[in-house]
Amino acid sequence: MTLQHPTRFDPDTLTFNDRGLIPAIAQSHSTGEVLMMAWMNAASVAETLASGQVTYWSRSRGQFWRKGETSGHFQRLVEMRVDCDRDCLLLIVEQTGPACHTNRRSCFYTAISDGAEAEIIAPEPPG
Amino acid sequence: MTLQHPTRFDPDTLTFNDRGLIPAIAQSHSTGEVLMMAWMNAASVAETLASGQVTYWSRSRGQFWRKGETSGHFQRLVEMRVDCDRDCLLLIVEQTGPACHTNRRSCFYTAISDGAEAEIIAPEPPG
Repeated sequence: MTLQHPTRFDPDTLTFNDRGLIPAIAQSHSTGEVLMMAWMNAASVAETLASGQVTYWSRSRGQFWRKGETSGHFQRLVEMRVDCDRDCLLLIVEQTGPACHTNRRSCFYTAISDGAEAEIIAPEPPG
Repeated sequence: MTLQHPTRFDPDTLTFNDRGLIPAIAQSHSTGEVLMMAWMNAASVAETLASGQVTYWSRSRGQFWRKGETSGHFQRLVEMRVDCDRDCLLLIVEQTGPACHTNRRSCFYTAISDGAEAEIIAPEPPG
């Protein structure tokens, strides 16, 4: 459902932090589960939209990070959304395999309650 | 489901950025919709856990921001989760009223596709 006439999107109209980055939340299209949060710069936003393959910006390596490039656990972009302040992205994705480098389907596998923390999602079986 | 014996949680074990903040994603417990992203410091994490009412840190005002304090659109914490890097929080919440200050149920009401952006969620009717 579109509520207004679409306007052209320019990644440079997003609000980036002082390192030129914007947080991007990945959510599973099929289950609604929040999978991970990582960062993008304007170029990785453009690359993600152009390729349909989610491409973050690796802060530690200072380079494009096409999700799944080494693990095979790609994220195909279904829809990109931007929030009211234009300083956060929501990526609706089709996730291949587990999203987390620990082999769990989501990075948010630790729950906090009653002053304690506990793992609530197990790693996927290998294969 | 708990996969290991719970260990005591200390907010100071989270990884905060150079401003002492950690991003917190709010997701609706009832619908699974991602509602918003805001920031917390260690004190607001502790306050949120103690009170059960989601309390962010307002970067613009430099003070606690108990969500809904002025709007009445509170977020009751159902569960807090932390990601694998301990540098992002996921808050499963029961949202009262719309989460967005624009009176929409989610801040992520703008979708980007085919090089254009368009609003896909309308403001809630008043009342």
